Amino acid sequence: MSSENKNRTELSELGEFGLIKHLTKNIKIKHKNTIKGVGDDAAVIKVNGKLMLVTTDLLIEGVHFDMIYTPLKHLGYKAAVINFSDIVAMNGFPKQITFSISVSNRYSLEALEELYEGLMLACKKYKVDLVGGDTTTSLGGLYITATAIGEVDKDDVVYRDTAKKGDIICVTGDLGAAYMGLMVLEREKQVFKANPDMQPELKGYDYILERQLKPEARIDILKILKGVNVKPTAMIDLSDGLASDIMHICTGSALGCNIYEDKLPVNQDTLKAAMEFNISSVTASMNGGEDYELLFTISRDDYEKVKDIMGISIIGHMTDESEGINLITKTGSHIPIKAQGWDALRK
Amino acid sequence: MSSENKNRTELSELGEFGLIKHLTKNIKIKHKNTIKGVGDDAAVIKVNGKLMLVTTDLLIEGVHFDMIYTPLKHLGYKAAVINFSDIVAMNGFPKQITFSISVSNRYSLEALEELYEGLMLACKKYKVDLVGGDTTTSLGGLYITATAIGEVDKDDVVYRDTAKKGDIICVTGDLGAAYMGLMVLEREKQVFKANPDMQPELKGYDYILERQLKPEARIDILKILKGVNVKPTAMIDLSDGLASDIMHICTGSALGCNIYEDKLPVNQDTLKAAMEFNISSVTASMNGGEDYELLFTISRDDYEKVKDIMGISIIGHMTDESEGINLITKTGSHIPIKAQGWDALRK
Repeated sequence: MSSENKNRTELSELGEFGLIKHLTKNIKIKHKNTIKGVGDDAAVIKVNGKLMLVTTDLLIEGVHFDMIYTPLKHLGYKAAVINFSDIVAMNGFPKQITFSISVSNRYSLEALEELYEGLMLACKKYKVDLVGGDTTTSLGGLYITATAIGEVDKDDVVYRDTAKKGDIICVTGDLGAAYMGLMVLEREKQVFKANPDMQPELKGYDYILERQLKPEARIDILKILKGVNVKPTAMIDLSDGLASDIMHICTGSALGCNIYEDKLPVNQDTLKAAMEFNISSVTASMNGGEDYELLFTISRDDYEKVKDIMGISIIGHMTDESEGINLITKTGSHIPIKAQGWDALRK
Repeated sequence: MSSENKNRTELSELGEFGLIKHLTKNIKIKHKNTIKGVGDDAAVIKVNGKLMLVTTDLLIEGVHFDMIYTPLKHLGYKAAVINFSDIVAMNGFPKQITFSISVSNRYSLEALEELYEGLMLACKKYKVDLVGGDTTTSLGGLYITATAIGEVDKDDVVYRDTAKKGDIICVTGDLGAAYMGLMVLEREKQVFKANPDMQPELKGYDYILERQLKPEARIDILKILKGVNVKPTAMIDLSDGLASDIMHICTGSALGCNIYEDKLPVNQDTLKAAMEFNISSVTASMNGGEDYELLFTISRDDYEKVKDIMGISIIGHMTDESEGINLITKTGSHIPIKAQGWDALRK
C-alpha cells in the first residue's frame, strides 16, 4: 500500500554525519531567538536575554550497549551524563532532563527501577531536575532517549566552529580508556558465550571499565577555567574520538591543526590494556570515543593561565587550513588525521 | 554477567500511567526555575520571567504506526504535530523541535527524505525551527523521538489540574474520527494481506483517514480564546481518548464531572464508519484517542463568550469529587467513566 521508491540510496553510503547533513541542509531558521540550530553539541535558544541549551542523545540496545555486560543502573547514569556533557561542551550548565524509554516486556519493573536509580543518581550529582519523558512498549529491546536542557550566559557560550589560527588545543583527563574498557567487556562476553560457567576476568581493569560504563561530564573544568578567567575559543566533547571531534573544530573553523602524539594523555591502565590487546594507545586515543572529555582551544595569550592546571593537557595548536589536520608523531612525521571514530550507521 | 532480579513485576501489571507514576514518585525538584516537572502535557521552566515548555513523544514502528499503511511524509508530519499539540495544551506556542531517529538499514535515504519532508512541512506550517536531534542505527524498525520547545507568558500558562467545581467542560473539533480512520486502515491491511492484488478500498473515508494519518494541533483555538479574552481554567490535549484525558483533569483537580452523551461532537463520516464497523460512536469518541483536539474547562462566567464559537462544543461541567466521573446518556443514566484509552504497555 505504501509507495515504492524508484531510487534507493543505502544509508551506509552516507554515514551518520553525512546523513544528518543531507537531511538538514534545507533548514531555514524562522525565529530570531533560535541562535544555533543543528550542527553543534546543543541547540541555543535565547529567552529574555538568557541562552537555553537543548541536546538529545539516543542509546539503543545492541547498538550502543550490550545488556550482557551493562548494568542498568550504570546505563541510566550514562544516558543522563552524555547529555549533560553536550551542555557542558557549550560552556553551559545542565538544569533539566527529559528521559524517554521504549521497552519490551522482557524487562521487569525491577529492571526499570535500576535504570531510573542510575538516572536519578546522575541527576542528583549534577543538580539536574528530571522533568518529563515518554514511556512506551517496544517490539524488542530497550531504546533510551534523553534530552538535556541547560543554561549559559550569552557572553559565556562557546561553539565548536570559532577557533582561531594559532590557538592552543587542550584536552581534559585522559584518552582511550573508555574504548579499552569496551574491549575488555567484549572479550569477557566472548569467553562467557563459549563457556557460561567461566567467571569474567575483570579484576585490575577497574579504571577503564568505569570509564566505559560510568562516564562523567567535565563540569568541574568549566568552573576551573572560569576561576582563572579563561574562556575557550571553541569547544566540543569527546564522544566520537579525538580524530573525529578535532575535525569538527577544524572544518567548522576553516582551519588546520597539529596534534602531537607525545602530548596525548593516556592513563597507565589504558596503556597496559592496549598492550595486552595489541592495540596502539594512539589508535585508542584518536579513534576510541566515549571518553566524554572536553576538547577545546584557547588563545595563546591564555597559555600561562592554563599550562599548569591539573587535568588539562596541551596537545597541539590550530594552523592554517592549507596545512591540513595532522598528527605529529614522536619521530616528527606529519600524518593526516582521518575520522575513524565510531559511526553508528556503518556499524 | 548482569545481575538477576529475585523479584519480577511484569510491566503489564502497571500500565503506562502506573509505570510512569511509580518510576517518578521520588523525584525532588532542585531548581526553583523548574516550575512543573513530570505530570502535565509539558514541563515548565522559568527563564528570566518567561516560561519555556518542553515535551517529548515517542513513535515506534509496530506500536504506534504500521509501515504498511503509513506514508512516511505523514509520519514525519504527525511526529512533529503531536508534540506541538502538547505545547498548545499548556496554552503555549511551539518554537523549536529536536527530531531523533533510530532506523534499520531496511530504510533508504529516499525514505528518510520523505519522513523529513513531512517534518519540515509541519515546522513550516506551525512556524517551528528544527534545531537538533540524533540519528543512529536500530536493530530493526524505525523509532522516532521528537522534543518540542515552546513559550508561554507566565500569566497565560494552563495546567491540567486546576479546574474548579462548576466549570464548564469544552472540547474542540470532533471526536472519534482518528480511531475510525485506524479501523479502516486495519481492515484494508487484512484484505491486502489475504490478497495482495486487491486494491485497498479507501474512497469515501478521506476525512477520517486524514484525521488518523495527519492530525493537527489546535493552535488556532488558543488565538480565538485570547481574542474573546477567555483563559481556560484547565486544559489537556486528546491523545489517549476523552475518557482517559477527562480523568486526568478530574483526578488532578480533585473533582468529578458530568459529560453529556448527546453533546459529544461527532463528524458524519465518523458516524457512518462507526455504523459500518458496528462500533458505537460514543465508544469511538470516549476511548478512541489520537484526535489531538483540546479538552478544557472554563469558568461559568465565560459561558456567553464561548457558547457560539464555531469549533468549540460544550459537553459537560465539573462537579464535586464525591459525585464521580460520569457520562450522562441520552436516557439520563449516569455511567461511571473508566479510562479504556489506548495504553501502550498493555497492547
